[in-house]
Amino acid sequence: MAHIELPAGMPGIRGLMMYRPETALPINQLVEVLLQGPSTLTKGEREMIATRVSTLNECKYCSSIHGAIARAHLGDDASLVAKVATSPESAPVSDKLKALLRIAAKVQQGGRSVTEHDVAAARAEGATDLEIHDTVLIAAVFCMANRYVDGLATWAPDDPEIYDRAGAFRAANGYLVPAPPVR
Amino acid sequence: MAHIELPAGMPGIRGLMMYRPETALPINQLVEVLLQGPSTLTKGEREMIATRVSTLNECKYCSSIHGAIARAHLGDDASLVAKVATSPESAPVSDKLKALLRIAAKVQQGGRSVTEHDVAAARAEGATDLEIHDTVLIAAVFCMANRYVDGLATWAPDDPEIYDRAGAFRAANGYLVPAPPVR
Repeated sequence: MAHIELPAGMPGIRGLMMYRPETALPINQLVEVLLQGPSTLTKGEREMIATRVSTLNECKYCSSIHGAIARAHLGDDASLVAKVATSPESAPVSDKLKALLRIAAKVQQGGRSVTEHDVAAARAEGATDLEIHDTVLIAAVFCMANRYVDGLATWAPDDPEIYDRAGAFRAANGYLVPAPPVR
Repeated sequence: MAHIELPAGMPGIRGLMMYRPETALPINQLVEVLLQGPSTLTKGEREMIATRVSTLNECKYCSSIHGAIARAHLGDDASLVAKVATSPESAPVSDKLKALLRIAAKVQQGGRSVTEHDVAAARAEGATDLEIHDTVLIAAVFCMANRYVDGLATWAPDDPEIYDRAGAFRAANGYLVPAPPVR
């Protein structure tokens, strides 16, 4: 049971967003820019960064839903997303994305963990300043979202189909369109 | 030196916000709702929660500027804000605020650290659901901001007067008005 009284049947951050629409709006706008806006990183890559950080923070709801969104963007390759979430070094992704995932994992530990060496390694693989910036901010945003969702003990469904349906919707529609009810 | 090239002379999150205005806008709107919007917690109390979390995350820029904003709201009681930042249990604040500060410190560790007991203790001191919600989200937002600011190794000035001037401006004007240049 959640720590505060939330709308029934709404999992994870969705119940919190119905509870407090004033804060939901800018959170969704921020995530829309970072995960769906124009970028030289693909939407699938950005969702995998979000999924990796949420996995490190052991946030069941966020890692499940963003993993499902990543799969929807990437054409449903469940094994790739699962591998990036738990063991990115051996995942079949670009060396640039691996370097950015290393930075994201450092941000998860704390901002001061990111070293000049981490950033130089990403740049050596072709990462731009803006890609490095957005990777740090995506990781930081999910350190917020994971804490928000779990700090209030929200409901995380067990049924993987709930995440698959919501993930396909979110990948297609972005973060500014209300999702249909959970069924 | 920051990890990416940022506008010169702009400390902390301010340089990042000039670098990426698309993400700056929703971040400022979120913080405006939480720290300056209508609430049964005073602005000083909310800034002290932000300062406490930023202190736990060892973020020099955020703890210094939000400490200064808190002092501006509270009529410049530097010793109270410093005490809440580092040893809130012995600070002369209400038992309700102490219980909320305990929840905020748990959120800083991770969302799953917050227990039913922590929440019941805050409620026993009179905290409402919305106050508990906002405390968790303020703490989570500063876990984001601290990682963003330090993950990109932004400049944190040493001169306390820079924070005092900017803190007074921010307390008076909120988060949606651009601050004057640092001098």
